[in-house]
Amino acid sequence: MTRGLFVAFEGIDGSGKSTQAKRVADALSALLTFEPGDTKLGGALRQLLLHDGDVEPTSRAEALLMAADRAQHVETLIEPALAGGQMVITDRYSASTLAYQGFGRGLSLAALGDVLDFATSGLRPDLTIVVDCDLDVARTRSSGTKADRLERLDPSFHQLVRDGFLELAANDSSFVVIDGNESLAAVTSAVDLAFATRLGIEVSSS
Amino acid sequence: MTRGLFVAFEGIDGSGKSTQAKRVADALSALLTFEPGDTKLGGALRQLLLHDGDVEPTSRAEALLMAADRAQHVETLIEPALAGGQMVITDRYSASTLAYQGFGRGLSLAALGDVLDFATSGLRPDLTIVVDCDLDVARTRSSGTKADRLERLDPSFHQLVRDGFLELAANDSSFVVIDGNESLAAVTSAVDLAFATRLGIEVSSS
Repeated sequence: MTRGLFVAFEGIDGSGKSTQAKRVADALSALLTFEPGDTKLGGALRQLLLHDGDVEPTSRAEALLMAADRAQHVETLIEPALAGGQMVITDRYSASTLAYQGFGRGLSLAALGDVLDFATSGLRPDLTIVVDCDLDVARTRSSGTKADRLERLDPSFHQLVRDGFLELAANDSSFVVIDGNESLAAVTSAVDLAFATRLGIEVSSS
Repeated sequence: MTRGLFVAFEGIDGSGKSTQAKRVADALSALLTFEPGDTKLGGALRQLLLHDGDVEPTSRAEALLMAADRAQHVETLIEPALAGGQMVITDRYSASTLAYQGFGRGLSLAALGDVLDFATSGLRPDLTIVVDCDLDVARTRSSGTKADRLERLDPSFHQLVRDGFLELAANDSSFVVIDGNESLAAVTSAVDLAFATRLGIEVSSS
């Protein structure tokens, strides 16, 4: 059986990445999943990491909890689906840890890379799509939802994260950056073009 | 201010390590701490790791959760105490992750070492005391307490863990192995001798 393709959507909250991940997964009958949290263990960790005001993880503990969630996610959901020939679309993956805990929190990118390689057994996406957008645009789009612990951090933190995603993309040819400031139709077209040119897959049947 | 000394007690459950750690900490007015669990985050993780039957972490997720607990423990408890000149005695530390998740679960020792270096920022004990004992002896001593998820594993797993502690000790001159099969008085004497010869510290005032 041909192994399934693995695609990650990345970007800051409010960039529109989740909308695109869902649309593409629906169109291609792919497994749609997300991080942190899309396993039983992950749900408990997501609560600890983003919503429990009492535990206050340090930056290193936060990175390791994200990595633990990813390990569980890869071993129990992503890898079995790929091995079974299914395409998997994930809303956030390793680039989020590098952007948030590396560029944002200031932890060593090389050390984080070692931790992520251990967590994922080296599994990397065939394609990572970064939906990039201005902080003002992202904030407007997110304004209807309750902010979690990371989302409540200073705008300067989110700027570091955004710049981090762009730097990761500049250094890895499996990344594509899409301008998330544009209209939904324009972003959709750009995502479809990335799938066509990078993976030879037509997303929309129009 | 002179930095405090850092000593870890290691071994399988029922070896008698916790009794010795507590005795020494009391005698030397050291900070006594334990893993996993001796922080607010750690308490939540200990519950997830050892007592929640629902989440079933994979081996890699388990190792990363233990590492997250350790990161929190080092940054919020151990390092501040050492920097303030206090001696710290910990009941379990990095050797437990190498023994249980490395030798026991079969994960790469080198990769685990990278993860632990990240978690601890490279902090290693000045002295690690492995209280070694036969599985039969350990089982008899532990029989009064309710077994957690790791303790319920097969005896062959615990034999791998025991052998792992001994192999770690054989390859690191900061380790001392003590025969935990002996009487409490004999184990106590051996621990005191290790403190005297390795650190120049007299534990008992007898």
